[in-house]
Amino acid sequence: MEILNILEIIEKKRDKKELTKKEIEYFIQGYTKGTIKDYQASALLMAIYLNGMTPEETTNLSIAMANSGEILDLNKEGKIFVDKHSTGGVGDKVSLILLPLVASLGVPVAKMSGRGLGFTGGTADKLESIPGYKTEISIEEFIKNIEKIGISMITQTGNLAPADKKIYSLRDSIACVESIPLIASSIMSKKIASGAQKIVLDVTVGDGAFMKNLQDAKKLSKTMIEIGKLAGRETVCILTNMDEPLGYAVGNNLEVIEAIKALNGQMPEDVKEVVLELGAYMLKLANLGDNIDQNKEKLLENIKNKKAIEKFKELVQNQGGDVSYIEDTSKFEKAKIVKEVKASKCGKLLNIPAKEIGKLACFLGAGRINKEDIIDNSVGIVLNKKVGDKVEKGETLAYIYTNDEKKAEKVCEDIEEVIEIGEENVNVKYIYEVLTE
Amino acid sequence: MEILNILEIIEKKRDKKELTKKEIEYFIQGYTKGTIKDYQASALLMAIYLNGMTPEETTNLSIAMANSGEILDLNKEGKIFVDKHSTGGVGDKVSLILLPLVASLGVPVAKMSGRGLGFTGGTADKLESIPGYKTEISIEEFIKNIEKIGISMITQTGNLAPADKKIYSLRDSIACVESIPLIASSIMSKKIASGAQKIVLDVTVGDGAFMKNLQDAKKLSKTMIEIGKLAGRETVCILTNMDEPLGYAVGNNLEVIEAIKALNGQMPEDVKEVVLELGAYMLKLANLGDNIDQNKEKLLENIKNKKAIEKFKELVQNQGGDVSYIEDTSKFEKAKIVKEVKASKCGKLLNIPAKEIGKLACFLGAGRINKEDIIDNSVGIVLNKKVGDKVEKGETLAYIYTNDEKKAEKVCEDIEEVIEIGEENVNVKYIYEVLTE
Repeated sequence: MEILNILEIIEKKRDKKELTKKEIEYFIQGYTKGTIKDYQASALLMAIYLNGMTPEETTNLSIAMANSGEILDLNKEGKIFVDKHSTGGVGDKVSLILLPLVASLGVPVAKMSGRGLGFTGGTADKLESIPGYKTEISIEEFIKNIEKIGISMITQTGNLAPADKKIYSLRDSIACVESIPLIASSIMSKKIASGAQKIVLDVTVGDGAFMKNLQDAKKLSKTMIEIGKLAGRETVCILTNMDEPLGYAVGNNLEVIEAIKALNGQMPEDVKEVVLELGAYMLKLANLGDNIDQNKEKLLENIKNKKAIEKFKELVQNQGGDVSYIEDTSKFEKAKIVKEVKASKCGKLLNIPAKEIGKLACFLGAGRINKEDIIDNSVGIVLNKKVGDKVEKGETLAYIYTNDEKKAEKVCEDIEEVIEIGEENVNVKYIYEVLTE
Repeated sequence: MEILNILEIIEKKRDKKELTKKEIEYFIQGYTKGTIKDYQASALLMAIYLNGMTPEETTNLSIAMANSGEILDLNKEGKIFVDKHSTGGVGDKVSLILLPLVASLGVPVAKMSGRGLGFTGGTADKLESIPGYKTEISIEEFIKNIEKIGISMITQTGNLAPADKKIYSLRDSIACVESIPLIASSIMSKKIASGAQKIVLDVTVGDGAFMKNLQDAKKLSKTMIEIGKLAGRETVCILTNMDEPLGYAVGNNLEVIEAIKALNGQMPEDVKEVVLELGAYMLKLANLGDNIDQNKEKLLENIKNKKAIEKFKELVQNQGGDVSYIEDTSKFEKAKIVKEVKASKCGKLLNIPAKEIGKLACFLGAGRINKEDIIDNSVGIVLNKKVGDKVEKGETLAYIYTNDEKKAEKVCEDIEEVIEIGEENVNVKYIYEVLTE
């Protein structure tokens, strides 16, 4: 029998050699148990960051991380579960709209979402801004909910991919976040552990995303598709624009209201394109239709006939939430102060940098800077214009929702500074590409 | 004021950028204090391993590590202290012979030596095999001894370069040992902290050394000379052969006996060449003569006229050791069992691999596998032949000194296996090169 040893594993990766499945499993198991130390994992992660990983290594890493904890089995009734995941962004309320929508068409939805950290928001936080909505329920309840109404949306629960959790937080403290094999395996380990047979990934690209350019986003996508293939999970990646915030609203209550409006038929153009593209592929993967355009029609139809919003209400009720908020969004708590940011000149909107807007919303209290921070659901930013729109001098660019006069002033000033107005023509694309292999 | 942050420092080195003096100091100070964690140091060290360091960075690292603790000031009486250091090997008793020898010619010697670990021995352990000899004395006593008789040889004492100690042990557990900037800064930080103005380095090359080939040894030497230059310590590197053990004896008592014989004029050829070369450069750096050949003559003269051995006795006495052992080496404890290894065929000795011999001596008890192990001073290996020598079938190749019959058998078998006998001509060089810049 071969005796494995973490020093030799670090040495191999340091020397640009390929790690075997067994070596990767040995590392993940040892690190999860604590027999391999943080400082050893740290050296290995830096070596991976600098020397890369082959698709096989990345797949083995994803599977080993998935196997470090519980693996959900959603396949009990022969239904095809299609998971959806976004690599993160600002104003991203897609899950809130898309998942009830596809559930209303018969795709079972078992969604575990993360919480927001830094300038990006988290779906679990957004759901919790609906009074009573419980995102932290047991796996048993989660499965029961899906069996009952075909959808449940909660936060990450149970002991799914604990190795990923440990590695992710280590990467954060050793400057090893922006590594394609490490990002890909982190995402895919959770998707594999959460049991869906098929996966649609919204790979965001641009200022407010992890991937700053199309080239990196493609590389990440191809890596994840390859992992999916090797792990027996068909994966589709949809590359979407995250240069400006998605839709108009940034901030929990504000985004939930925007999502409810969308489910009622009032969808901002970018949100609409992303929801329909992702939804059409989810239907396709669920064997509910191969024609993407026809699938989009089906999705639009279920918005029109209110089946989507009804499914959302059913979800909220089933998770303990107060449905009257969905029926009357004016019930959501509003921030005390609303300030308008006016355009200082006329022209076209050239740039509304997502990351800066996300950071400013976070500064208002809409996000967490540290993990322990408490989010103020009522605050945030609502844009009045999107990139490509014309604007007159003095016209409102954005509304600032805040409970703090001083913060309001600072954010107003900063927003004016970061939003670019000019004369050039802007050609905005919301969907860049769909990768299926 | 610039605010430094370990994440940004890791990021810079990860991205192949040059670290500033301040950034390196921030890392070393933080890591010594413990505000920078092992796992962060680990990531940075791996990034240094893989992306290298410029001479300026390596120098700043050496100086920062030296400054992490006490710095000895030996310069009080205007005398030029010349330190000597070897990068390690098997059977390396050079310090025991060389330092009393140069001290007998008026070069003040303030030598702190390491202990042995793994297959390499340590001068401090060898000195301690002389009954009564104290290697662990205070810095004050150390300085007083030098003032009194011009030489003191002890083990590493006080709080010299604590950052190096911490980093060295971390490197050992994350596969980051064989890195030229890290090896060079580790050696030079200790040399800078121990206060000598000039430094002669014995850079060993070959099977039993850190540096396996001449190219790496030259690179390491040039790096250390550059650090010395930038830190104001003139440094000479002498590249010596460590393919076979130095001299004949491996094991503490056996090596001390060989050293005493050498000081009495019986020097094996390789030991002689190395001692004379290093000694001649030490005299030169101490401003005691610019002509290397003449310096060698002076050294030989002080062997002949017994001044060297007298200085050694003075040293031993001054450190509390029993001088009668030096006068009569038969007093040293002998191992109970002496086995002879005989040649199985005639021919020329082509290879006596230093690392294997070191490991076998270590297995007999002459060295430490773990830091806590206790050395048996009486055991070891004494070669009867050196590389290049002719041997007849049945002639003795080596003597095994042991207190354990079973170990003796195993070592006899293994030694026969590793020593190569053949017909080829061998041209052995003991000194490869002297680098002064």
